[in-house]
Amino acid sequence: MSNGFAQLQAQFLRLRSNKLFEGFVISVIVLSALVVGAKTYDNVSRFEHILVVLDAAVTLFFLVEIAIRMAAEPRFRDFFKSGWNIFDLVIVLASIIPIDSTDTVLIARLLRVFRALRLVSMIPELRVLLNALVVAIPRMGYVALLMFIIFYIYAAVGSFVFEGVDDFLWGNISLAMLTLFRIATFEDWTDVMYDTMELYPYSWIYYVTFIFLTAFIFLNMMIGIVLEVMQSESEKFKAENGEDPAQEQQALQQELVRMREQLNRVEALLQEQSRKA
Amino acid sequence: MSNGFAQLQAQFLRLRSNKLFEGFVISVIVLSALVVGAKTYDNVSRFEHILVVLDAAVTLFFLVEIAIRMAAEPRFRDFFKSGWNIFDLVIVLASIIPIDSTDTVLIARLLRVFRALRLVSMIPELRVLLNALVVAIPRMGYVALLMFIIFYIYAAVGSFVFEGVDDFLWGNISLAMLTLFRIATFEDWTDVMYDTMELYPYSWIYYVTFIFLTAFIFLNMMIGIVLEVMQSESEKFKAENGEDPAQEQQALQQELVRMREQLNRVEALLQEQSRKA
Amino acid sequence: MSNGFAQLQAQFLRLRSNKLFEGFVISVIVLSALVVGAKTYDNVSRFEHILVVLDAAVTLFFLVEIAIRMAAEPRFRDFFKSGWNIFDLVIVLASIIPIDSTDTVLIARLLRVFRALRLVSMIPELRVLLNALVVAIPRMGYVALLMFIIFYIYAAVGSFVFEGVDDFLWGNISLAMLTLFRIATFEDWTDVMYDTMELYPYSWIYYVTFIFLTAFIFLNMMIGIVLEVMQSESEKFKAENGEDPAQEQQALQQELVRMREQLNRVEALLQEQSRKA
Amino acid sequence: MSNGFAQLQAQFLRLRSNKLFEGFVISVIVLSALVVGAKTYDNVSRFEHILVVLDAAVTLFFLVEIAIRMAAEPRFRDFFKSGWNIFDLVIVLASIIPIDSTDTVLIARLLRVFRALRLVSMIPELRVLLNALVVAIPRMGYVALLMFIIFYIYAAVGSFVFEGVDDFLWGNISLAMLTLFRIATFEDWTDVMYDTMELYPYSWIYYVTFIFLTAFIFLNMMIGIVLEVMQSESEKFKAENGEDPAQEQQALQQELVRMREQLNRVEALLQEQSRKA
Repeated sequence: MSNGFAQLQAQFLRLRSNKLFEGFVISVIVLSALVVGAKTYDNVSRFEHILVVLDAAVTLFFLVEIAIRMAAEPRFRDFFKSGWNIFDLVIVLASIIPIDSTDTVLIARLLRVFRALRLVSMIPELRVLLNALVVAIPRMGYVALLMFIIFYIYAAVGSFVFEGVDDFLWGNISLAMLTLFRIATFEDWTDVMYDTMELYPYSWIYYVTFIFLTAFIFLNMMIGIVLEVMQSESEKFKAENGEDPAQEQQALQQELVRMREQLNRVEALLQEQSRKA
Repeated sequence: MSNGFAQLQAQFLRLRSNKLFEGFVISVIVLSALVVGAKTYDNVSRFEHILVVLDAAVTLFFLVEIAIRMAAEPRFRDFFKSGWNIFDLVIVLASIIPIDSTDTVLIARLLRVFRALRLVSMIPELRVLLNALVVAIPRMGYVALLMFIIFYIYAAVGSFVFEGVDDFLWGNISLAMLTLFRIATFEDWTDVMYDTMELYPYSWIYYVTFIFLTAFIFLNMMIGIVLEVMQSESEKFKAENGEDPAQEQQALQQELVRMREQLNRVEALLQEQSRKA
Repeated sequence: MSNGFAQLQAQFLRLRSNKLFEGFVISVIVLSALVVGAKTYDNVSRFEHILVVLDAAVTLFFLVEIAIRMAAEPRFRDFFKSGWNIFDLVIVLASIIPIDSTDTVLIARLLRVFRALRLVSMIPELRVLLNALVVAIPRMGYVALLMFIIFYIYAAVGSFVFEGVDDFLWGNISLAMLTLFRIATFEDWTDVMYDTMELYPYSWIYYVTFIFLTAFIFLNMMIGIVLEVMQSESEKFKAENGEDPAQEQQALQQELVRMREQLNRVEALLQEQSRKA
Repeated sequence: MSNGFAQLQAQFLRLRSNKLFEGFVISVIVLSALVVGAKTYDNVSRFEHILVVLDAAVTLFFLVEIAIRMAAEPRFRDFFKSGWNIFDLVIVLASIIPIDSTDTVLIARLLRVFRALRLVSMIPELRVLLNALVVAIPRMGYVALLMFIIFYIYAAVGSFVFEGVDDFLWGNISLAMLTLFRIATFEDWTDVMYDTMELYPYSWIYYVTFIFLTAFIFLNMMIGIVLEVMQSESEKFKAENGEDPAQEQQALQQELVRMREQLNRVEALLQEQSRKA
């Protein structure tokens, strides 16, 4: 509002885009991650209060840093237009929730763990990578739905038929889906199978068909994604180069047509001259 | 036949293609799947009769829905021309088979599970996906046959040689093939190997060669499929765009040839004039 | 030699290329494989002499069939020019080695198992597939050598350091390589690691680096093969179509150059006329 | 310096590039690897002094060979310009470190194992392969960083929450990361999960999300690498052939423009003649 504030804002803007300041913020994030990691060791009681002080300092720094970035924004609302800003704000605010009872100590600690995610929002290359991953999610949507339907049907069949064999693995449809996920990762799946084969000797058909189905669909999904990505890449490439061979060919063709028209006129003139002569 | 029936049919046709009606059918399918899932939990006895009523309602709704779709068809026979219609009809009819003895309760329950598959026939994107999967099956035919021959030979050798070691794993050729499938998924395969290595110290050759062969053939199959899919895609793309660079080049060439013939005539005329002059 | 023999040979040639005869040979191969499979079941003693008779019949038929194929060959030597003929001959001859002692019964049985491989030499599509697999082997040669060196070094280190921990797993370099192969398939590798970590707490570095190295090289090998196959495919495609866009472009260019020369002559003639006039 | 030394150097240079000498060096490397392997067997005490002599002979030969290669270099400094030379020198020097106490026997043995790596520096194809692998490393840098952040966060959460369940698996953040690596390889991961599910029934969410995240990122990384490699390959191909269809098209276009200009002049001349006539 006042001129002083505008000057301060300009200074904040310079500070925010300063490479050195960015490097310092990244260092603090790494430090905060290391502090979190250090706390998981049992023999750190000696350094406990150092860690507490470091933790508080990191929290304070993060608050100041996000305040600077907010203040540097010409219009306050624009700060919330970037998803990464909101991402940072939520992470920082979540880690300063006051801790009262001993129950919430764990939750407060967990929330501080996620401060390491701020590395992703600070390093542009990681941001690009994460955007690419997020873009890839819908592409897998319908395959995931198909996979879910297959899991659901097999889980329903499994929990109806095999419930008597092992209540822990097939007790209800949720447990059965977890068991099927385990089978899909090939994790001790034969133990599960040998158990049910004692009561139902032909239950191997259930397992083998399930493994084939999931592997087959997964394979096709992978091939489909590779093809789709390659097509979109080649289209992007064409759009960037603005080059369309078919169009250039047409330009050549038109040029030739115009030349033939001119040649026609030349021939007509000559024939007229011949007739006159 | 009568005018009234034709009007009713037109109304059914409108209803069938109504987006809202489609959404409602999908909701009912999801509901029926949830009812099936809920039944797998033990502590649902309180809601048992609610589930029974829901189940009957869903069954009735499915019958009505398929009757509407049949009646909406201008010619009754056309209904059976679509594989998806037959697919739906079989699923719906299978789930209303009357249950007499307690033995068939399980079968009736299982048949109702497959009603979730109707999601596939209702959602166009899933239908496209499933068609693509079905198309990919023959492509894998001969590789599957080769794989089967290798499994069969290894299983025969295994059940001849290792039968004395573990009758459960190598008792006959079927059991041996199941054991080999387990080895191909790397599932506790060393347990199987260490057992046979006690009697036959060199039996590790059997396992290592089998793993290499299956992995090698599987890898080659995957590469082959990727290549085949890419070729068919690029051919489809060409066919769609109706664009063949080679043909366009020939058109240019012919244009040039015609121009040269014209130039020849022009030159001949000029030379004649020169001679006359 | 005589005319009668030539006629017989022509008949054999017709027989050999007869689709029905081929189908019959394939059926006999499948039957022989089923006989081998049936023998692995314990409760077949009742049908034992049927199996013995079937086995003898199949052996006899294979001898006759290969004799017919030999006789059908115009020049006897040509029979041995085809690798598949030798392949068939070896399999058939190996399965009629006389069985004396009880010790060789197992070997005789095993040799008969390989008759199922004749399916590969009878079905053209499988022959093509197997050729493709054999062609792919040298491509993997140097990567396999690099992999072997890594396995050898890790195995030497492992058997020097971990020998005291578990003599069965790390006793000598061969055992250690088998253990590493097991680790590369992720088969209960943590059991092996936790054992050695009791004595050498930092031995996890050994396992994690090994897994990363093998996975990394394997991944790069796969990518390399896909690229190589795609390049060779695209080159094959070009060679088949005999079409080189660059060459066609040059032809167009030459055509244009010749036209300009002609135009030059036309212009010269006209200028001469103008001067004269 | 003296003429005699120059002659000797020329002889060394010839020797170094001699195919036979190269083959002999490779044989000695293989022999040294076999000696190392032989030492891992327990029943080699009879041949112990043969192995010791062989080992000394190999060490001496390697020293002489590297001395020859050094002497063959026209300028001594150039020897250290090739990374492979330094690689060889370090390996050879490391294996002659004197062994005093029994403690260092193991280290001396381990250092000798790495002499097998000299195969990589001797065989050009392996050298190319290793260069390609080294080139591929930075490409994976940021994905590896992202993967590490995810591992770190999950490990911190795991060691905070599950520490009470199993101190061996979740005791501190390092142990938790090793456990997560184990889960990422699907190695008995359900055992880990079932343990924690006893205290925290919903902990399966932790494992399933972790497996999905790592598998998803790994898949995307692979697709990304394949695409990147293919793009760089196609660019290399273009650069090698020096052929740019777009440029050739432009050349054709310019040729046509020049022809039209000439035709314009021809037409102008003819019209002038007509006017005059």
